[in-house]
Amino acid sequence: MADLLPPEELERRLRAIGEERYHIHHPFHHLLHGGRLDRGQVQAWALNRYYYQACIPAKDASLLARLPTPALRREWRRRLVDHDGDGVHPGGVERWLRLTDGLGLDRDDVTSLRGLLPGTRFAVDAYVRFVREKSVLEAVASSLTEMFSPDIISQRVSGMLRNYDFVTEETLAYFTPRLTQAPQDVAFALDYVMTVPRTREEQEAVMDALRFKCDLLWAQLDALHHAYVSPGLPPPGAFRP
Amino acid sequence: MADLLPPEELERRLRAIGEERYHIHHPFHHLLHGGRLDRGQVQAWALNRYYYQACIPAKDASLLARLPTPALRREWRRRLVDHDGDGVHPGGVERWLRLTDGLGLDRDDVTSLRGLLPGTRFAVDAYVRFVREKSVLEAVASSLTEMFSPDIISQRVSGMLRNYDFVTEETLAYFTPRLTQAPQDVAFALDYVMTVPRTREEQEAVMDALRFKCDLLWAQLDALHHAYVSPGLPPPGAFRP
Repeated sequence: MADLLPPEELERRLRAIGEERYHIHHPFHHLLHGGRLDRGQVQAWALNRYYYQACIPAKDASLLARLPTPALRREWRRRLVDHDGDGVHPGGVERWLRLTDGLGLDRDDVTSLRGLLPGTRFAVDAYVRFVREKSVLEAVASSLTEMFSPDIISQRVSGMLRNYDFVTEETLAYFTPRLTQAPQDVAFALDYVMTVPRTREEQEAVMDALRFKCDLLWAQLDALHHAYVSPGLPPPGAFRP
Repeated sequence: MADLLPPEELERRLRAIGEERYHIHHPFHHLLHGGRLDRGQVQAWALNRYYYQACIPAKDASLLARLPTPALRREWRRRLVDHDGDGVHPGGVERWLRLTDGLGLDRDDVTSLRGLLPGTRFAVDAYVRFVREKSVLEAVASSLTEMFSPDIISQRVSGMLRNYDFVTEETLAYFTPRLTQAPQDVAFALDYVMTVPRTREEQEAVMDALRFKCDLLWAQLDALHHAYVSPGLPPPGAFRP
């Protein structure tokens, strides 16, 4: 096997994976922030993405359960607070439901998962299972898409506010805290994957984990694009705007 | 909970699920057997479907491992023979590779799973996991899509032979034994789900399992349709004809 990569070279390769595979390059994202979707299509996006949001704490808790030290567990516990809230300030899951409220979706319809695309379910479940079953190193590495999320969030928020009269700042309040939470999360995860691997195989596993994560974000937009844009064929039982 | 359904009513409802959700109604199937795909698109279908074929023995073995009697295990063991062969006669996995050979795909490319659509992987993995983790009744019920497979196989084989000059009877030899194996499998599985449930909840679980299975077959064609037909955007890293 090849030599261990210097940390800066590993980081360069991780960023190159994002350049190629992150869903900021997906046509559905361009349509979404470019104002070229109708309200029903934006609803479909929000309703499906809810399942991803709702499963994030499950994947974080299953990783937390396997971390060996109080310091590591505290670091990862912060993510649970970010997503589930502290009982006073709403977490990410609750804020996502305010987004679906703002788009005129019924909460029971959203949280029941009736109408979810099977493609969304399979991709999200694959993520939860990956984090539960792979090494701690790979599980941490799969969170590294947050390296790229401030850009996509900025595009989404500014584009959606500018282009849709049915979207308000309040509707998109989900995203504001993410702009500071994600870089904090990344700082830890990037340091972890740059310092923990002792072999090139482990570094390759880190890169594969990021590729896997990019693929599953991409697959979620594929499913939306197929069902609601082109050709626009929701599978039987799926949400119809 | 409602009363137990009479067996004939349960069967009627199972057939109605197929009427609504079986992938014989998917536009990609119509394009495939109607001769409206090019060779590269048919290759993409065969390459992706290989992963489904290759995983069938894993799902059958995990169910076999949980069956309680020699008679039940022998019944299910037949499926393993059908798919893995007996060392003399090729099984379904080997016959599928003859199909990909016949379409001009390199075996290493196919079996390496390089180029597989993430949507295929997530859907197939969801099936293997379902059979491993759900009740034996639900696992058996998820095989009931074979009730509908002789129709789709007949359409596929006759349509593909008629419409594609790059497809021969030898290429499609995978399907011939399936026309007799599937009804034999169904006879057992249908009898099982009609006689084992003691509650309406169990009968509902049987119907949900069949819906789940239809959804994942459908999702595989969604992923193909999106990547190779409309809009025709293979995700990064996927097979390009």
